[in-house]
Amino acid sequence: MVDILHRVGINASPRDVYNALTTLDGLSSWWTNDTQGRPEIGGVIKFRFGDRGFFDMKVLELEPEKRVMWEVVDGPKEWIGTKVIWNLSPEGAGTTIRFKQQGWREPVDFMHHCSTKWASFLFSLKAQLENGKGTPYPNDFLISIDFD
Amino acid sequence: MVDILHRVGINASPRDVYNALTTLDGLSSWWTNDTQGRPEIGGVIKFRFGDRGFFDMKVLELEPEKRVMWEVVDGPKEWIGTKVIWNLSPEGAGTTIRFKQQGWREPVDFMHHCSTKWASFLFSLKAQLENGKGTPYPNDFLISIDFD
Repeated sequence: MVDILHRVGINASPRDVYNALTTLDGLSSWWTNDTQGRPEIGGVIKFRFGDRGFFDMKVLELEPEKRVMWEVVDGPKEWIGTKVIWNLSPEGAGTTIRFKQQGWREPVDFMHHCSTKWASFLFSLKAQLENGKGTPYPNDFLISIDFD
Repeated sequence: MVDILHRVGINASPRDVYNALTTLDGLSSWWTNDTQGRPEIGGVIKFRFGDRGFFDMKVLELEPEKRVMWEVVDGPKEWIGTKVIWNLSPEGAGTTIRFKQQGWREPVDFMHHCSTKWASFLFSLKAQLENGKGTPYPNDFLISIDFD
């Protein structure tokens, strides 16, 4: 099993970061503007990217201002069963996010792509929280970082 | 042992991408403007980031337009002995880069940080090759993506 790891510092409070990860409005502001479902424990959040694909995430953990965990219950076959884990910690007036997508079965080519894409969406999250300039799908500049 | 993986598509030829990875001018245009040393097989390339740190990479493999491998011979202790591997493949008129930093002993906190930083420098490489807008140190927008 292999994991995608990232870390980013954001000049926003843990409360604001947590809200961006746990509300439909927040998630829509940096990942995809087509985000629906129930972002509470046991609920499923449906992230849609037009004809580029989708992910359904079941919410497993919600610890305000500290931790969020989702399990991928539908989407690309390589993603199903992986867990997406967000750990937040205060750093001065800001927040450090430690991100992990845990449990890839193999380091397949698609995992390389997803690692880079996650980074770009973390930059979108950061831009959204720091200056309101998130680039969620379909405005993600990332459409252009790969050929698919 | 764990690896950092990335994949990015660049609208530039494999020849141009290879040159950006194997010449001092090329490397200076997207990673750090303080790049010195001997970028040939067996040579050591010295990447300097002011008081933020440095990496010394020994060139192990050079396969024109296809593959570059370096071994980290000095720098942060977690990096020493890891290998940085660039695989290039043509994709239409462009190039897909598959990147790996192989052989981290443990998925430490610093590895999370480096995974995200590598993504940002890959975006710098892409910007440099596509429109001459690379952001090598000290102009890396990444100074701001983390707190250190």
